[in-house]
Amino acid sequence: MLKYIDPDTALNLVLSETKRARAQSVPLLDALGRVAAESVFADRDYPPFDRAMMDGYAVQVADAGKLVAVVGEVAAGRTPSQSLRPGTCVAIMTGAACPEGTEAVVEKERIQVQGDTVLLPPNIARDHHVARRGEEQSKGAVVFERDAEITPLAISVLASVGVRRISVFAPPRLAVITTGQELVFDDAQPGENTIRDSNGAMLAAQIKLLGLKEPLLLHAEDSLESLATAIEQASKMEIVVFTGGVSMGRFDLVPQAVSDFGASIVFHKVSQQPGKPLLFAKTDEHLIFGLPGNPLSSYLCFHRYVSCAIKKMMGKPFSQRYGRARLARDLVARSDRTLFVNGRVEKHDDGWLLTPRSRGSSANHFSAIDCNAYVRMPPGQHRLEADTEVIFEWTEGYPR
Amino acid sequence: MLKYIDPDTALNLVLSETKRARAQSVPLLDALGRVAAESVFADRDYPPFDRAMMDGYAVQVADAGKLVAVVGEVAAGRTPSQSLRPGTCVAIMTGAACPEGTEAVVEKERIQVQGDTVLLPPNIARDHHVARRGEEQSKGAVVFERDAEITPLAISVLASVGVRRISVFAPPRLAVITTGQELVFDDAQPGENTIRDSNGAMLAAQIKLLGLKEPLLLHAEDSLESLATAIEQASKMEIVVFTGGVSMGRFDLVPQAVSDFGASIVFHKVSQQPGKPLLFAKTDEHLIFGLPGNPLSSYLCFHRYVSCAIKKMMGKPFSQRYGRARLARDLVARSDRTLFVNGRVEKHDDGWLLTPRSRGSSANHFSAIDCNAYVRMPPGQHRLEADTEVIFEWTEGYPR
Repeated sequence: MLKYIDPDTALNLVLSETKRARAQSVPLLDALGRVAAESVFADRDYPPFDRAMMDGYAVQVADAGKLVAVVGEVAAGRTPSQSLRPGTCVAIMTGAACPEGTEAVVEKERIQVQGDTVLLPPNIARDHHVARRGEEQSKGAVVFERDAEITPLAISVLASVGVRRISVFAPPRLAVITTGQELVFDDAQPGENTIRDSNGAMLAAQIKLLGLKEPLLLHAEDSLESLATAIEQASKMEIVVFTGGVSMGRFDLVPQAVSDFGASIVFHKVSQQPGKPLLFAKTDEHLIFGLPGNPLSSYLCFHRYVSCAIKKMMGKPFSQRYGRARLARDLVARSDRTLFVNGRVEKHDDGWLLTPRSRGSSANHFSAIDCNAYVRMPPGQHRLEADTEVIFEWTEGYPR
Repeated sequence: MLKYIDPDTALNLVLSETKRARAQSVPLLDALGRVAAESVFADRDYPPFDRAMMDGYAVQVADAGKLVAVVGEVAAGRTPSQSLRPGTCVAIMTGAACPEGTEAVVEKERIQVQGDTVLLPPNIARDHHVARRGEEQSKGAVVFERDAEITPLAISVLASVGVRRISVFAPPRLAVITTGQELVFDDAQPGENTIRDSNGAMLAAQIKLLGLKEPLLLHAEDSLESLATAIEQASKMEIVVFTGGVSMGRFDLVPQAVSDFGASIVFHKVSQQPGKPLLFAKTDEHLIFGLPGNPLSSYLCFHRYVSCAIKKMMGKPFSQRYGRARLARDLVARSDRTLFVNGRVEKHDDGWLLTPRSRGSSANHFSAIDCNAYVRMPPGQHRLEADTEVIFEWTEGYPR
């Protein structure tokens, strides 16, 4: 077991133990936001017929400037009843199949109707407003690549080529096991020396934000028996996340419980603040994380480690999202570990501005409620003046 | 009814007709990503007791450097059994309530245990590793403001102050009505001159991506009767979105059907490409959008107009997200309307790079499948060289 490693080594160890999830077939719309585990091919040419791109008249180019007879009409979805001969035209709707012999479609706005004839404009370019059969995709061509994320535009294409279900990398299922005798749950009123659980709800929210189902929420008392029961119940999930019970206290039994379960502990304690007690273990079927119990430690460790593992399993990009911002005020930092300072990034007229929010300890989530980023400071003592440009990492979604 | 207005006027008209949704009470975790319609207050002081921030010993500062007797132990969640007197200390766990008289908590790593006594370090700062009752929040203080978005950190705080349900601005319910005789649905095999619907699935995905339920999907034939039936079925939703049937063709009956329903048409046709035929109408209870039937027109109009209305209803920021990127290749644009050129933005070593993807027409979604942004060009003719810096608007989520 590795101890007191740096945060980059810790993340690399997590990622090197994380494998892509198995593929599963899901209905197309459920695949939104997931990554395709199969490539998809065009089932026929697209467009499947020479398609009119405008409401107007299907014509031959030699008839430009002439008065031609309107010999028919094709609505979208209908089969043209005749082919086009010189000196004639056919009224046609956007999306309709062009009659055989069509060389261009002239939009309604450019012709003059004179009884049963129309006067065509003097210049008509060949193929104007006609999408020729197969010009967008040929039958059999790849229209969507394996390993790409399924967006609304992808769904548009996939629906059009007849995909009703698609194979995607399965999102992992998670269990969250809270620990700590000081916690009360659900509607229970906390006593004088107890508090309501908040990590369970927060982690469930972080998990939901990644597009996953809500986790199985369990609570364990501070005993090896209770922890063993919880981990057994959690064992049908691919990822098990503990909060609390990983620090120095006499009741911090999570490392022992994880070992008793048969998992091998990859590392315990990371040289970072917050989040020093972080534990990471694995079995052949599970990734197990022991997050510290303080809300902001738990939040950061989920964001930096657990969410990267989840994204890797789902085939998504998992690197941090960086940005540059000016500091809104002086930032003084002092730690012998890598320090992650919470902050709020907002757009101002002349770029991004970051206001550090780290007040008090990692237990004080009240002070950090609007944070969406953190600034990473290497070990040592630092004083950054207001207006200094810093590189930050986003935590929440990209703000306006 | 306004005709052929510019895209900014169009968006302003949509927004000025869009009102915030009513508030609804939902379970806390369902409120993730929504905007609070009520402020939330601390139900008691936080922390509710003087809380130990480390595993160690509760001490008095005058005992620094002395050997003191360990007279008890307090685990988290327990009531301290005695108060602290000079010359004594109490073993204490992170999160536990400090005994009366505690002036500091000394972490385990800094003391030496000698039988039933411990040797304290020579310097102990008052209040070190103790979070005093009420120092994070006072009972009755606002812990979360109305109009703020509910993030995982907000859920952490809200759970801790006992919020089990919260009032949020209700997400609107949508109906999507596809039109066009050329469309086939579900498992039906398209014929020689027909194609599968893709707009219904794409719009459902765009709607889901905003955190809403899947829309009611309806299809109308190209007749006023069929359109009237569909709009009647859709009328229990706050937003009705048509695709197709708003252009110049003889079967483009959506404007008539919308008027027949009793809606007043605010505008029809916008000086933009793609998306010229866009229609916007309203009744006292509905916003009604008529999107053009081409996939990329429909996509852009949903993104630029419908999604902004949805976000405004939900109390969210609705302005476009801009960025700056270098062009990966020359961009030649020519239109008498405002042109929105699809592109793919990616991060490169030296910043963001945008590759324009606009090939062929707005019917060709194959060419735009990986687009996540567009460049907006004013009416006229433009030639931008590769490497020029352009301002772009994000469409999909923020990429890595």
